[in-house]
Amino acid sequence: MAEYSSILLENAVESLSKLPGIGKKTALRLALHLLGEDATETEQLADSLLKMKHNIMLCERCFNISDTKVCSICSNPRRDENTLCVVADMRDVLAIERTASFNGLYHVLGGVICPIEGIGPNNLKIAQLVERTHKEEFKEIILALPATIEGDTTNFYIFRQLNDFQGKITVISKGIAVGDALEYVDEVTLGRSIMNRTLFSK
Amino acid sequence: MAEYSSILLENAVESLSKLPGIGKKTALRLALHLLGEDATETEQLADSLLKMKHNIMLCERCFNISDTKVCSICSNPRRDENTLCVVADMRDVLAIERTASFNGLYHVLGGVICPIEGIGPNNLKIAQLVERTHKEEFKEIILALPATIEGDTTNFYIFRQLNDFQGKITVISKGIAVGDALEYVDEVTLGRSIMNRTLFSK
Repeated sequence: MAEYSSILLENAVESLSKLPGIGKKTALRLALHLLGEDATETEQLADSLLKMKHNIMLCERCFNISDTKVCSICSNPRRDENTLCVVADMRDVLAIERTASFNGLYHVLGGVICPIEGIGPNNLKIAQLVERTHKEEFKEIILALPATIEGDTTNFYIFRQLNDFQGKITVISKGIAVGDALEYVDEVTLGRSIMNRTLFSK
Repeated sequence: MAEYSSILLENAVESLSKLPGIGKKTALRLALHLLGEDATETEQLADSLLKMKHNIMLCERCFNISDTKVCSICSNPRRDENTLCVVADMRDVLAIERTASFNGLYHVLGGVICPIEGIGPNNLKIAQLVERTHKEEFKEIILALPATIEGDTTNFYIFRQLNDFQGKITVISKGIAVGDALEYVDEVTLGRSIMNRTLFSK
């Protein structure tokens, strides 16, 4: 006998609980919520997921996800085409866009080099990055990868691949977070933050 | 410009975040997970939700959710047809089934009387319960409603409605939970649990 007296419910719970962070109990709660609501809610949800999965693509220039061949950032004439920001993941694009402090273009690698997980340079869009630096005319490439060993490794690898690049290559600064009290900052970060101190300016 | 550089993604996140307990950040995580997986995962999810929403029904006898007109519990010849357990919600059926300590039939009210939320006796399957007691021949009706004021009110209301019922009407016991240390039990529960003490038997 089905655990839920309904195979239909059981299947829905099963599918929902395949999502990350959603266990059986949460999945059941979500399914019962949908059962209690208008059918349009379920239909919209199913429709939007299918449309997303079937129609979304990667921008052929920066590899950010996009509804069109070239994404809305790459095709925006107001963006500064001299500056390129290299990030690991499309979520990082969102995070940087929210700061409103960058107006250049992006290049989404699709991850960082991580031998343990079997991710080598060839699994990332690094060759495409090098190609872009030949075709487009960047004055600066900002490496904005995670502050992890894998991020550092990837930074270093990219730096070597870009050895014929004429412009500046910069890395985002690491240090204590704005609002942090020194006593709670971990030693590595605090040590680096002292080493990488900058001239005081008002 | 779309927040996510993709209206398709934005729509999917929007629909997902309508689910209870799912905020924008979680919705984005779920959507990106689906983007990273095979299309079949999204298709199965959408399909199972739509099939559930369009095809599920309430058992016409006990009002538990069911794939068929009469649910798998009501139509199971091995269940004890003498005992009826009245619960508020289909989740309570699941909870009681998991205990494997009840083999009778159920009656799902669809909630408890709660004037503040506008739920009166007529919004629940209480008339149908009374009708069942006339048609079927129960020897015992167990009221297994939540241990809240609303649950108690509903118990009392049902008790009065069943005044011509010839069998036993019982209520599930309230007291300290198995495994509880007395010092951590709230006073009301502990007080009731002393009042409702039972003869010690081995």
